[in-house]
Amino acid sequence: MNNFSFYSPTYFAFGRDAENQAGALVKRFGGSKVLLHYGGGSVVRSGLLDRVKAALKAEGLDWVELGGVKPNPRSGLVYRGIELCRRKGVDFVLAVGGGSTIDSSKAIAAGVVYDGDFWDFYSGKYIEKALPVGTILTIAAASSEGSPDSVITNENGMFKRGATGDAIRPRFSILNPALTQTLSAYQTACGITDIMAHLYERYLTNTAEVEVTDRMIEALLLTMVHEGPRVIENPNNYDARANIMWAGMMAHNNACGVGRSQDWNSHNIEHELSALYDCAHGAGLAVTMPAVFSYVMAHDVMRFAQVAVRVWGCQMDFAHPEVTARAGIEALRRFLISIGMPKNFAELGAKEADIPKLVDVLCNGDGRPGSISGFVTLSEADCAAIYRLML
Amino acid sequence: MNNFSFYSPTYFAFGRDAENQAGALVKRFGGSKVLLHYGGGSVVRSGLLDRVKAALKAEGLDWVELGGVKPNPRSGLVYRGIELCRRKGVDFVLAVGGGSTIDSSKAIAAGVVYDGDFWDFYSGKYIEKALPVGTILTIAAASSEGSPDSVITNENGMFKRGATGDAIRPRFSILNPALTQTLSAYQTACGITDIMAHLYERYLTNTAEVEVTDRMIEALLLTMVHEGPRVIENPNNYDARANIMWAGMMAHNNACGVGRSQDWNSHNIEHELSALYDCAHGAGLAVTMPAVFSYVMAHDVMRFAQVAVRVWGCQMDFAHPEVTARAGIEALRRFLISIGMPKNFAELGAKEADIPKLVDVLCNGDGRPGSISGFVTLSEADCAAIYRLML
Repeated sequence: MNNFSFYSPTYFAFGRDAENQAGALVKRFGGSKVLLHYGGGSVVRSGLLDRVKAALKAEGLDWVELGGVKPNPRSGLVYRGIELCRRKGVDFVLAVGGGSTIDSSKAIAAGVVYDGDFWDFYSGKYIEKALPVGTILTIAAASSEGSPDSVITNENGMFKRGATGDAIRPRFSILNPALTQTLSAYQTACGITDIMAHLYERYLTNTAEVEVTDRMIEALLLTMVHEGPRVIENPNNYDARANIMWAGMMAHNNACGVGRSQDWNSHNIEHELSALYDCAHGAGLAVTMPAVFSYVMAHDVMRFAQVAVRVWGCQMDFAHPEVTARAGIEALRRFLISIGMPKNFAELGAKEADIPKLVDVLCNGDGRPGSISGFVTLSEADCAAIYRLML
Repeated sequence: MNNFSFYSPTYFAFGRDAENQAGALVKRFGGSKVLLHYGGGSVVRSGLLDRVKAALKAEGLDWVELGGVKPNPRSGLVYRGIELCRRKGVDFVLAVGGGSTIDSSKAIAAGVVYDGDFWDFYSGKYIEKALPVGTILTIAAASSEGSPDSVITNENGMFKRGATGDAIRPRFSILNPALTQTLSAYQTACGITDIMAHLYERYLTNTAEVEVTDRMIEALLLTMVHEGPRVIENPNNYDARANIMWAGMMAHNNACGVGRSQDWNSHNIEHELSALYDCAHGAGLAVTMPAVFSYVMAHDVMRFAQVAVRVWGCQMDFAHPEVTARAGIEALRRFLISIGMPKNFAELGAKEADIPKLVDVLCNGDGRPGSISGFVTLSEADCAAIYRLML
């Protein structure tokens, strides 16, 4: 196990009606003038935004609003948010929505107190300072509610990049599973896939002797395998949604990723798909993961056999561990299809003819060295082969 | 799943040589005049205390020392510590040691800023305010390094009681697994037992639909079952100690106990043993847990069967689930004996003749209502029967 530090100071208020605590929590964590940041009309139509405003008003807090966050949130709205916050003297950013809204909020919070272009953070600069951020989560997926990370799509070239820093960890996050009951089955399945991807990205490690984090990742994967089909069958299953929501947070606050190298190749390979085709990140991951895992399996057959046995219930083939390893990848692929995810480029709306362009942006965009690195290092040829496995 | 809040703002510095960060971390979390609190001579002999002092000195920090913490830490030293901190103007309490030292530090930190008797907190008053606390952990066991809890033995009657409050959560905790390599096999096994007890106390719940926390608890138990024998066989196995240390923290910061009722009957029943006989808490738990679990098994046979199958690898007897449930308890008992723990009253130094006295303090001491409550409510007769199972 490697040396590490771990810091997850977010206060989580979890359960029915938790959004009514929004005002008290903004106050507790030092806010007085709030940017209320959200996406489309669903938080308006559902009445959630009104309940949040009532909670802010009850505490005597002032706010300005900025809606319009899109899935795969864009740099343009971030610039507008930064300008708005500066003009209005905002001192707290409250995200009401899913990962896109939270990531956009984090970008704004970091940009407001930074003299340069906020995109510097998405080109590798660590975020040292930001306005405090709070979240009211409406989708269990990106797990940005407990993470120090944010992903934004640059409209100048349509590439997605991530930024990180303890300063953008939410001071509080409100998790009410009932708020996710109005999601479509497709959106729900995309969230489940994203959470499972966060787990696999940590599972694929080159660090030895990581029993505790291996076991925790497996525990959270087992939870998703159990609760995923239940919630797809019955969208109103509060308990299944509650288990998924807490698993999603635990999957990505890094408690189970500490002390070990991680992968993130699947996320990087997918990011180019959702940036180019504007497909849902989870849907892209459902197509990407089995392709990547099949391609890199030989790098550590026993690791893939381990997850196959412990999570997917495969019988270990002691004479041919690669058979078990492959069975585990196939079980993942079938599971994702069973919850309604696409299985190939066509179903995703992606095109074979775009592969050279995808590979080029992936491996060379924004200063990358002609390859991507994680569990294994993948050259342009490797990445092209992986995209072709998705056809 | 029940509604809950979760807040674990402790900064963890984990790995080799992490104690050298002590000065920088005290400074980061606002300390200038430190109480250096520790136990016996081992932190002196090992050179750890000198390294910590050097780290404080390098940051220009001032300190006063208070050693002498004993296992099952006593109220007397807490009163002395409170008086010392007030007299010297201490603003930060740094614990160097195991759970006893950390719990004593928390009690002092809460007492310094409280007008009444600090024992009020150990009689049920929630701790709202305390000096900031930091820890440098030398034993993986009590997991007080990441918890809002403290247990102190009142010398006036020799009973152990717990107190709690977010204010006594450590601001930082330094976890260097190498510091635990000098522990005896017996101390190490006591720690392993205590960690497993923290997991079982959360596992035994009356709340339905808690898949995610069930799976996480099982993951941490599986880690202990795998790593425990490795570290008993080779005390210098750094990686096994690292996995145990992180599992111990995760077992007790409550990330896997949220949203569910918990038990804590085994801890309460054991506390009277270590208070009266001054035996190690972990050793007492090793004798207590199998007795309690056998006694309450009928309350939820399927829960005991689940842990038997998922953690202990027992075959499920679908016609007779109680056979599987019992096999899991027996597997736990044998495991604890295999790592060197006592198996009955005699090996613990406890006496049958004391049972009435143990039961009386347990069920009636300090204002209790003639019973204890958790997974099940246990009357005086129940508790007497459980102590007799340990003979």
